[in-house]
Amino acid sequence: MHLSEAERQGVGAGSILRRKAAGGYECVTDDVAIEEPLEIRVNGSAVATTMRTPGNDGELAAGFLFSEAIVRKRADLRKIEPSGLPGSTGNVMEVVLSLDAKFEPASAQRFGTISSSCGLCGKTSIEFIRQQFPAIPAAPDFRIAEATLLGLPERLRSSQSNFARTGGIHAAGIFDQSGNLLIGREDIGRHNAVDKAIGRALLDDLLPLDRHVLVVSGRSSFEIVQKALAAGIPIVAAVSAPSSLAINFARKSGQTLIGFLRPPTFNVYSHVERLEK
Amino acid sequence: MHLSEAERQGVGAGSILRRKAAGGYECVTDDVAIEEPLEIRVNGSAVATTMRTPGNDGELAAGFLFSEAIVRKRADLRKIEPSGLPGSTGNVMEVVLSLDAKFEPASAQRFGTISSSCGLCGKTSIEFIRQQFPAIPAAPDFRIAEATLLGLPERLRSSQSNFARTGGIHAAGIFDQSGNLLIGREDIGRHNAVDKAIGRALLDDLLPLDRHVLVVSGRSSFEIVQKALAAGIPIVAAVSAPSSLAINFARKSGQTLIGFLRPPTFNVYSHVERLEK
Repeated sequence: MHLSEAERQGVGAGSILRRKAAGGYECVTDDVAIEEPLEIRVNGSAVATTMRTPGNDGELAAGFLFSEAIVRKRADLRKIEPSGLPGSTGNVMEVVLSLDAKFEPASAQRFGTISSSCGLCGKTSIEFIRQQFPAIPAAPDFRIAEATLLGLPERLRSSQSNFARTGGIHAAGIFDQSGNLLIGREDIGRHNAVDKAIGRALLDDLLPLDRHVLVVSGRSSFEIVQKALAAGIPIVAAVSAPSSLAINFARKSGQTLIGFLRPPTFNVYSHVERLEK
Repeated sequence: MHLSEAERQGVGAGSILRRKAAGGYECVTDDVAIEEPLEIRVNGSAVATTMRTPGNDGELAAGFLFSEAIVRKRADLRKIEPSGLPGSTGNVMEVVLSLDAKFEPASAQRFGTISSSCGLCGKTSIEFIRQQFPAIPAAPDFRIAEATLLGLPERLRSSQSNFARTGGIHAAGIFDQSGNLLIGREDIGRHNAVDKAIGRALLDDLLPLDRHVLVVSGRSSFEIVQKALAAGIPIVAAVSAPSSLAINFARKSGQTLIGFLRPPTFNVYSHVERLEK
């Protein structure tokens, strides 16, 4: 891949026309979030194409395959590298699984082509997910202080690039109990940002993240909560609203779901027992 | 389907805990956007699962299949109805194509399982899309007045439900040259809202929408512009930012792409010739 410094941050700049308030146009240069397709191939077979912001593609592939239950542990991954195929232009990642990892083209077929924008695609049902990823134990041996929780969005924001801070790109951050940011990632797709963060944790052998909090910059939909469950994350917090399915899923899977995390308030949709004063 | 009035508007209500500014919690009732999976089946085969807000599911299936080039015209659709399968609970739509429509399980296999959240999933490449949907002729025989364009976001908003107006749900609207709203649809997924609107137009035999404007409430990504191209829509306007690929795609496909449509200004990313004072 040949990326400029701005492109490495997922930002491209271009000349555009801006209508002036008084009428007429001026030519300005504006930043835009980069969106490109990434094809993820496993043992030579294409299993998914996702629209993502280039960068950290190996993490994205690892996190995606992990949250789809195709990869279960670090040792399942033998190699992740950009494809050398002519014309792949950095937009194809080749994943080679270890011989021990159970992956058959037949089972890949069952998954079909999956989008990272949709946590359910290719899965037989939400029940299938529940079978793959057990609920998080109810015993609240991990808690977070409300004051720590309230500080996380600002910590995530301050780790981001200028462009991302203005809302141009989504962010996902994995925090420890003390509110330290372990991994922060950005992408035009919120789900990709989560996959990249979880993928990094998988590659660093940090899973399960059972004493951690996932914070996302926008809303929380079903797939965000599902990906967190795959990584064993007990607390998911979003700056905006959750969907109905995100709430129902979190309640059943034993996860604490926080929404509208905007100091000094927030909403608790499930498992409030993990919060303490 | 057994939906309450609120559910018909894509809104569910539930009791949640809200942290008070001074500390402590109060129990409140809050609206949330409904998110549920919809499986789209064609001639008995599942071709896609998308996470959507229930309602207008026939339109969603029609618009989705049209923008994927599986359905090319109204007459290709013989039947669209909720599945009678046990346990489908209104979340499976069965589409039966006319005998004339070319659809083979083999070609469906090529598509794989597709997500409406990702306009590219299952497609071989962006080149495939270009082959299916020709660029819009450059000759600017359709123009829109800037004053009309500037009024569209407010017209879309005033057609929405209270919940959607607060940003809980995305909206897509198809407008004519005079700024009249022909079709407005809402969904938790912006792409689904566009599919529903285009699907309605297909079912009413209004395609191509070559003298119309598509307005979306949030950002414009690649898939929004691609779906508009499928329907022949020459002007796409979004209230927020476009992605790099949305811009590049619009430039090549002859579409006018507007971003940050916030009176009294907006940005023009391509084909400014369709705007007039």
